[in-house]
Amino acid sequence: MEETDLKEIVANIFYLIEQRDEPKLKNILVDMHPADIADVLERLDEESRNWLFSLLNPDDASDVVVELEDVPREDLIEDLDTERISEIVDEMDSDDAADVVSELPDEVAEKVLKSIDDQDREEVEELLRHEEDTAGGIMALEFIAVNENATVDEAIRQIRQKAEEVEEVYNVYAVDDKDLLVGVVPLKKLILSSPSLQVRDIMNRDVVSVSTDMDQEKVASIVRKYDLVSIPVVDAQGRLVGRITVDDIVDVLHDEAAEDLHIMAGITEEEMPQETSTLKISRLRLPWLIVAFIGELVSAYVLSQFEASLHEIVAVAFFIPIIMAMGGNSGIQTTTVVVRGLAAAPESFSIGLKSLKRELKVASFNGAIISILIFVVVASWLHLPSLGLVIAIAMMVVILNAALVGATIPFLLKKLNYDPAVATGPFITTSNDVLGLLIYLSLATAYMHWL
Amino acid sequence: MEETDLKEIVANIFYLIEQRDEPKLKNILVDMHPADIADVLERLDEESRNWLFSLLNPDDASDVVVELEDVPREDLIEDLDTERISEIVDEMDSDDAADVVSELPDEVAEKVLKSIDDQDREEVEELLRHEEDTAGGIMALEFIAVNENATVDEAIRQIRQKAEEVEEVYNVYAVDDKDLLVGVVPLKKLILSSPSLQVRDIMNRDVVSVSTDMDQEKVASIVRKYDLVSIPVVDAQGRLVGRITVDDIVDVLHDEAAEDLHIMAGITEEEMPQETSTLKISRLRLPWLIVAFIGELVSAYVLSQFEASLHEIVAVAFFIPIIMAMGGNSGIQTTTVVVRGLAAAPESFSIGLKSLKRELKVASFNGAIISILIFVVVASWLHLPSLGLVIAIAMMVVILNAALVGATIPFLLKKLNYDPAVATGPFITTSNDVLGLLIYLSLATAYMHWL
Repeated sequence: MEETDLKEIVANIFYLIEQRDEPKLKNILVDMHPADIADVLERLDEESRNWLFSLLNPDDASDVVVELEDVPREDLIEDLDTERISEIVDEMDSDDAADVVSELPDEVAEKVLKSIDDQDREEVEELLRHEEDTAGGIMALEFIAVNENATVDEAIRQIRQKAEEVEEVYNVYAVDDKDLLVGVVPLKKLILSSPSLQVRDIMNRDVVSVSTDMDQEKVASIVRKYDLVSIPVVDAQGRLVGRITVDDIVDVLHDEAAEDLHIMAGITEEEMPQETSTLKISRLRLPWLIVAFIGELVSAYVLSQFEASLHEIVAVAFFIPIIMAMGGNSGIQTTTVVVRGLAAAPESFSIGLKSLKRELKVASFNGAIISILIFVVVASWLHLPSLGLVIAIAMMVVILNAALVGATIPFLLKKLNYDPAVATGPFITTSNDVLGLLIYLSLATAYMHWL
Repeated sequence: MEETDLKEIVANIFYLIEQRDEPKLKNILVDMHPADIADVLERLDEESRNWLFSLLNPDDASDVVVELEDVPREDLIEDLDTERISEIVDEMDSDDAADVVSELPDEVAEKVLKSIDDQDREEVEELLRHEEDTAGGIMALEFIAVNENATVDEAIRQIRQKAEEVEEVYNVYAVDDKDLLVGVVPLKKLILSSPSLQVRDIMNRDVVSVSTDMDQEKVASIVRKYDLVSIPVVDAQGRLVGRITVDDIVDVLHDEAAEDLHIMAGITEEEMPQETSTLKISRLRLPWLIVAFIGELVSAYVLSQFEASLHEIVAVAFFIPIIMAMGGNSGIQTTTVVVRGLAAAPESFSIGLKSLKRELKVASFNGAIISILIFVVVASWLHLPSLGLVIAIAMMVVILNAALVGATIPFLLKKLNYDPAVATGPFITTSNDVLGLLIYLSLATAYMHWL
């Protein structure tokens, strides 16, 4: 739906909510796509949102919940009673049901699981056994699989039988007698093949699959690499246990990108642009500001230790911002590229050493150019060529140090099982500031003593 | 393919390239997925890469080129002669062919277009008429469409007829007698429907489509919102003209995310982690370092104008880093959230005003906390409560100013048709530094005069 249409509808719905006009609202909702209803809910205040949501029958409510972004979904479900949650979960695909249940407080989750259909409960419990951010954590148990000896006609009958349960079908998976995944048949191929042929004769044996414990980011990179619309998930023995569809991969890519951007900006988790509560926003942003605050207090302490030097040549202070900025900016460039490289390939000592060498080479080159520029400026502007030389040397050392720190910290973080992307945030910038100032003022002081 | 397997294969291929062992290499390549061959090529040096690529027949070469990332693809094609490019382009889907041709120098592009099949040329020329980053620019002309009055059986025959040309089929589109898009039938539905039914009786009439001139980022957000595997593209009259598949949308999402990260880090365009040329890397990074350099020279000039004040109370200089850092960090938080909001919704004066108000509220709250903290530190550490008060007030003004700048500049950039994400890079941080120092030192000087 076009943004402008949606705006009009939101305005209309807003008016009808104020009037508490149930019949008209239900009439509008029934014609809307669940994703559009989710969009509308995300723009309403809490009370209107909850009331409007209460008008939806369990089936529609379930479709809408699946379409909500993580943060508004958690907010909405927090306000529902256990019975309503059970109704909604009962209508969901196994992967979505598991997502919702995993976000519930333990006692509510238990009640919900007890009240839903037995088979659904088993499926959800099965899925909850996997880590949230792995293939097992995002896969669904709804898929079409047939024995490789089945005929095309039998495969089509299987699709018909499971038509309600498995909404989106792009491929039929072929398994052997031990349930091991052995092939894949795209629907197009199935349509074009003679009904009496065996699946084993038309299947593609080079089927790309992932194991349940693979990290979701890695799964996404495989789906992207091989241009897949769905990917089968196998257990440690190679038995087919689930399927991940590309819409979930698109969400993974979106979430991981959002996460990286937020970390880089010093925001602890995804902040929705439509969030209006100052307290909630501050809770996401203040922690990193405090980290930077404490770090820069150390900077202030470093400067205070060099009070005598600053007093002697005030001009030294003029270049504090430029030293900080060049170290900070070149450090962020290094860390961003190194972190992206780490996301694409596994960390290893040799790759680490290679990217460190590469970054030191780039820093030497860029540092040399910036150092020459700063020398020219200080020498010609302040007519202090020897101070210019000291500042230029300090600039070079600071930029090299930023590359050294920027290329090694992400590896250390990954080795310690932290997200290397943290290195692109205020944490590293702040440490760079402290180290940069220490280097700069030490060299400047040494120069004064030598004078 | 697993990363470890790929590493072994790369090592093996590397050895065979040194031996110039054509037969063995061809034997290995024939069993590899094009995406894996692309992966290997991206890890080789230029000479080995070109030689290995020359072993591929046009059909395989075409599949491999499609799988390469943008930067290595351009590098590779630069080194090919016109004849080889024509062979490869001839084998591609229309959208990929248009991508490759659009990157060629004009005279080469012309030669290539002249030498390929007439129908292919017309298709590529048709696609090149659209802007690169729009639905028209990323759509392919390969899709299955039937008249709504056709039967299911006729639709299946149409799929069979175009089976070679249209590799991936997930949906059949229904058009009326004027070629206007009127519905969509998923393959699953087609399989399960009786062959004699008419398409109009089984099609979904709520088909989500996009127009040729829609920005690709907007297309991606629609595909993500409605969980689609492909989306039809219509012209201004509503006639079906193309189709975008989800694998291209996944690439759009990946590229846009990479672009944002690079802009934020001050790198002018996507830098591959495997790039090793210092000069090439420097060309991407140095421009923003120079921008920051020039900006911070202004900072130095600002400081020099306050030389007397700095001389009088050196302690004022101690807090330069913390003032810069808090303004910078809170400014980046604001800009990042505002830019993300702008990407999701169209800019309008009322939305701009709303997010400005929201950001000023958050800045008031966070600024107040940081200001109280800095006051406590200065008052208790340096025993200068009145200087502490001045620094606290300056901190508050600097943080409010950062929010003001951070919330308005992205809107201005978008109004002027620049990418608002530029505001998250070194440009804004640097302006914030200059303004922040000006505010801080003006207030500190006023305080000294008032003493």
